[in-house]
Amino acid sequence: MDLVNRKPQEVREMIRKGEIISPTAGMCAGYAQANLAVLPKEYAYDFLLFAMRNPKACPILEVSDVGARQLHTIAKNADIATDIPKYRVYENGILTGEYTDVSHLWRDDLVSFLIGCSFSFESEMIEAGIEIRHITENCNVPMYMTNIECEPAGIFNGKMVVSMRPIPYHQIVKAVTVTETLPRVHGTPIHIGDPAVIGIKDIAKPDFGDPVTIKEGEVPVFWPCGVTPQSVVMNVKPSFCITHSPGHMLITDIKNVELID
Amino acid sequence: MDLVNRKPQEVREMIRKGEIISPTAGMCAGYAQANLAVLPKEYAYDFLLFAMRNPKACPILEVSDVGARQLHTIAKNADIATDIPKYRVYENGILTGEYTDVSHLWRDDLVSFLIGCSFSFESEMIEAGIEIRHITENCNVPMYMTNIECEPAGIFNGKMVVSMRPIPYHQIVKAVTVTETLPRVHGTPIHIGDPAVIGIKDIAKPDFGDPVTIKEGEVPVFWPCGVTPQSVVMNVKPSFCITHSPGHMLITDIKNVELID
Repeated sequence: MDLVNRKPQEVREMIRKGEIISPTAGMCAGYAQANLAVLPKEYAYDFLLFAMRNPKACPILEVSDVGARQLHTIAKNADIATDIPKYRVYENGILTGEYTDVSHLWRDDLVSFLIGCSFSFESEMIEAGIEIRHITENCNVPMYMTNIECEPAGIFNGKMVVSMRPIPYHQIVKAVTVTETLPRVHGTPIHIGDPAVIGIKDIAKPDFGDPVTIKEGEVPVFWPCGVTPQSVVMNVKPSFCITHSPGHMLITDIKNVELID
Repeated sequence: MDLVNRKPQEVREMIRKGEIISPTAGMCAGYAQANLAVLPKEYAYDFLLFAMRNPKACPILEVSDVGARQLHTIAKNADIATDIPKYRVYENGILTGEYTDVSHLWRDDLVSFLIGCSFSFESEMIEAGIEIRHITENCNVPMYMTNIECEPAGIFNGKMVVSMRPIPYHQIVKAVTVTETLPRVHGTPIHIGDPAVIGIKDIAKPDFGDPVTIKEGEVPVFWPCGVTPQSVVMNVKPSFCITHSPGHMLITDIKNVELID
């Protein structure tokens, strides 16, 4: 089934019906995909402030109204509780279930945060002629915990998680300028070069995702990662939390190029 | 007294001592100045969400911790309750007083929002060789109510207020590209040309500020204005609210050029 060239609304409907329960990478080419974090209203102010204080790691694409399963902007006909292929539910910081539909768990006090995803800038980098190694090697992007403290907000604090892509010396400036145009999906790199500077001990052993080959003449380049907000939320062990399952994103109606400010 | 070349911290100390109670335009050249809106915590989530949904009209530079009179980032030694030359206090939407110090009115449930100000991009435009007419004519920038609905959030909704600067045809692109680099102080124009398109009936009669001359060969160019959040807050008539008095801003330690993302 070719989902690369389908419209987001069609694919979301297939997901809603349970016809798709796989990761969304590569579906609906050119359209932005979003990370999901759903929290009870009591946590919403602190989380929103955390996002605002850490926009590179936690770029908010949209926040739902309290209790609403609908969105106004990035995917008008989407149902947040059904249109993601796989959800994770956490209670007091413990994973209590994985679901393809969370309608039965929905509550009037829930607020949904849709957060930009590096899938968007990767497709722009490929367009610009930059090879994305984990795509070439058909694995998940390598992600690392760093020693970079996020700016805390209320109950939320923690270290930044970064994703890494090896870039040849002659394309480093291009990697910066291409991602600079997309601040709503993490934007520019947070670090270029020696992993030890940001507290990464072994580049071959990512904390999340898979290791990738770094060739002679390539430099590891690090971007703030959308796993950061999930990691920070888990530190706090909220009473209740729903997230997407890794790789199973919300496919939005917004084209990546529309995210250029 | 030459305040143009003084450091922000020195000028804030003079303001704190009551030695300066005048508008801050032109003080501490090159440093960003900020609009202030202080609201009780009960309004803070909705206001923060409003700002996030309307970043061009309401670009947040910093949000204080609840009850704190200190800031972490844009002015580390500032005291929010004393370091602005003139404050306005509103109760249930009614102006109940103007003060040079609001320490005696401070409460443990107050949250301060510091919002970017177009003073920053004006100085960059001047550097780029663009004349700013209201500075040449030594008056306040003309501001207008528009028919552009802000994206509502919780209890907050209303129309966008814009500021206008006449720009010669050959400098319109430059005015866009210079302000594009400064999204944290309103960024790019919201409209270029015919005022009627955004619901402005008479360009000679601004709703706030002063009219300025538009010469032959110049086009009115409109930017989202920091008066928008104040206007929206006043619609809601919150039980309590402190703002800066127009033109009497917080002078931050952040240089305008540091606001380039």
